[in-house]
Amino acid sequence: MARTLIKNLKEKVGQDVEISGRVLNIRKLGAAILFVVVQDYSGAVQVVFETETKVGIGEVVKIEGKVKEDSRAKNGVEVGGEKLETISANLEELPYDFAGKDLNLQLNTLLDLRTTSLRHPKTQAIFKLYDLLLEGYEKTMRAEGFTEIKTPKILEAASEGGANFFKINYFDKEAFLAQSPQFYKQIMVGVFERVFEIGTVFRAEPHFTTRHVNEYVSLDAEMGFIKSYEDVMKMLNLAIKGVFDHLRTNGEEYAKLYNVEIPEVPAKIPAIKLADLKKLVKEKYDYTIPESTDIDPEGERLAGRWAKEEHNSDFVFVTNYYWKDKPFYTMPSDKDQNETEGFDLLFKGVEIATGSQRIHEYEMLLENMKAKGVKPAGMEFYLNTFKFAMPPHGGWGLGSERIIQLILGLGSVKEAVLFPRDVKRLRP
Amino acid sequence: MARTLIKNLKEKVGQDVEISGRVLNIRKLGAAILFVVVQDYSGAVQVVFETETKVGIGEVVKIEGKVKEDSRAKNGVEVGGEKLETISANLEELPYDFAGKDLNLQLNTLLDLRTTSLRHPKTQAIFKLYDLLLEGYEKTMRAEGFTEIKTPKILEAASEGGANFFKINYFDKEAFLAQSPQFYKQIMVGVFERVFEIGTVFRAEPHFTTRHVNEYVSLDAEMGFIKSYEDVMKMLNLAIKGVFDHLRTNGEEYAKLYNVEIPEVPAKIPAIKLADLKKLVKEKYDYTIPESTDIDPEGERLAGRWAKEEHNSDFVFVTNYYWKDKPFYTMPSDKDQNETEGFDLLFKGVEIATGSQRIHEYEMLLENMKAKGVKPAGMEFYLNTFKFAMPPHGGWGLGSERIIQLILGLGSVKEAVLFPRDVKRLRP
Repeated sequence: MARTLIKNLKEKVGQDVEISGRVLNIRKLGAAILFVVVQDYSGAVQVVFETETKVGIGEVVKIEGKVKEDSRAKNGVEVGGEKLETISANLEELPYDFAGKDLNLQLNTLLDLRTTSLRHPKTQAIFKLYDLLLEGYEKTMRAEGFTEIKTPKILEAASEGGANFFKINYFDKEAFLAQSPQFYKQIMVGVFERVFEIGTVFRAEPHFTTRHVNEYVSLDAEMGFIKSYEDVMKMLNLAIKGVFDHLRTNGEEYAKLYNVEIPEVPAKIPAIKLADLKKLVKEKYDYTIPESTDIDPEGERLAGRWAKEEHNSDFVFVTNYYWKDKPFYTMPSDKDQNETEGFDLLFKGVEIATGSQRIHEYEMLLENMKAKGVKPAGMEFYLNTFKFAMPPHGGWGLGSERIIQLILGLGSVKEAVLFPRDVKRLRP
Repeated sequence: MARTLIKNLKEKVGQDVEISGRVLNIRKLGAAILFVVVQDYSGAVQVVFETETKVGIGEVVKIEGKVKEDSRAKNGVEVGGEKLETISANLEELPYDFAGKDLNLQLNTLLDLRTTSLRHPKTQAIFKLYDLLLEGYEKTMRAEGFTEIKTPKILEAASEGGANFFKINYFDKEAFLAQSPQFYKQIMVGVFERVFEIGTVFRAEPHFTTRHVNEYVSLDAEMGFIKSYEDVMKMLNLAIKGVFDHLRTNGEEYAKLYNVEIPEVPAKIPAIKLADLKKLVKEKYDYTIPESTDIDPEGERLAGRWAKEEHNSDFVFVTNYYWKDKPFYTMPSDKDQNETEGFDLLFKGVEIATGSQRIHEYEMLLENMKAKGVKPAGMEFYLNTFKFAMPPHGGWGLGSERIIQLILGLGSVKEAVLFPRDVKRLRP
């Protein structure tokens, strides 16, 4: 018999079918009746056996049976099981409660057991949402005329003057892993005007926090012919809205497992200047953002609180970051030379995106580098691009995994990365 | 005035508009008339100035004018130019003929000038097709129930026993860059049954050929519950067909610049066993594929020739690669232990994809590793996954850039990579 996908069972009521998949759950009713929940890539269904049947939880099985209507079931059917064949069994007992509603594992244990703990429905849900996030971003950016690009991850020089680069042995040379596609996406604005990239970025930062990993997937975009950084913020607003609408339309069932709702994105996300935010946080919440930081995590949290209280928004733009804290390619503010046309986007009081208008004039770029003490070595190809007609432009980098972490309320961003890499962890 | 996108000009015939973009071409008619072709991200249009106007080729400009019907123009309109403002000029003359029909640069010069030579319409066309290829793959895989995943590129061990890994300094440890998502996508079959990934892969191979780069984007997929490798080939056939149909529907204008047509993918791509192919190539084309290779480039070329001559197909599957040449996770053939359930897909006589059924049983996997002399060190997490119910499965890795190279007939795959990395080249 040919395999029927579980999502198609409702079209085969009364017919004999063969289904195959993984056993998610087993429940016994008395001595004679066995309920087996089976999942394939299209969905899950309950199979009822009334004859003696041997099967283990988590096994991969093939089942023959007859489809019956069942108004209580999610997809309106169940299967009367007639024959069950185990295609692949567990050689050892699963090291966690696969059938439990929650996994209830410490983060490190969860990650140590990752290759199989991912099979738990609640963990699956995280990465089903992640899949929808990628799809939502791709669709929204294309609809806005952005061209998808793929830029190199191996760099000749640790550009942007930063220290947090991983070093590679590249044949007889030394090379570095890209921290962001920054230079390349700017160059590509000169080609396609609007570009986006979904790509891995690498940060050699020795962080031990719940919001950092050393390798993650950045959702980047860069666009030309902007009038100011506000055009970039508008587009990011639209992109985020596109992603969240897509998640809400298609991912509600996954969010439900975490008892959360996927928030609405306002048509216009509130924005506040960093300097104003610092005053406001002091006055309203009696908290002083430390001088040594542009903004600390507690400051971000209070910015999020303010946006929620005053604007009923889970999102807030913080703008006009200080010149001293921003990389050399960030456009200085024309009103206050201590500020820049740079912004962050916070979601639930945590930074998820950083963006800005960039400098597009060659001389200004050189001057800003000089003022910041950045050496041009290894960046000549980037700098020279600006000798050749570049439109005013700006863009953002958006952390993909953090969005899912914050929607679901996961304790660490590592739970939203399939196989996270941190200072201590390189496996599985 | 607000900017009008060039694609929307046809809705504004008779109206005054503002457009902005890059000057692709300038043509003078007598002393008084100037034709300026301007491109924005939505299209290109000709602007006619009848008053004296100063503008340079390749500049970024803003133009005010009146939209006129023009039945000879591609989008049915031209613009009567009234005012032109240069937003960004070229500080130096462009180091190549920007307005020429072709770039006519040596590969190395083309790549040295990459940051601006990408702006040439013929180079743009390559990466517009590449964008469509990514979109086509994403759409086709999702329509077939595949979940998009992102797996780590930093590995603890140089797995698969291979030598061609780049080494990284990872904090106080040594780590490696992933050559493929092989282990991770197999693990994910145990979670979602069908997964795909679009991701960067790194090969430390000191190649100097027209078909290799050291960093490229691989289109991967892996699927469970297959009956044999033929199910994998069917799905790859379908994926390739989805991509090429998408390219043909949306990318014809780009292919035209190269005077090529985007080929049709047969509903069933012809397949031939490697052993049979070797005989056939000898008998039909009097060429002996060297014993030291599974198949050499000339053998691949002749396989492509045979598929074209006998089946009118630009594609051919070569199957049953030898056990000795295939990695340890490849399912040995049940009919001939010297062969495997592994295949390559050739397009125009060049390998674009490699796939196989994989071993899904723990004991068999260990035995095959032992027989091949592969040490399990660093692969324990992968091996242990197979103790826990894995369905029969298989998948492929498909080189994205090579497809575009072969469609357009580019001399080197490097022309189809935005910023290629090879043994000698790490910039731009």
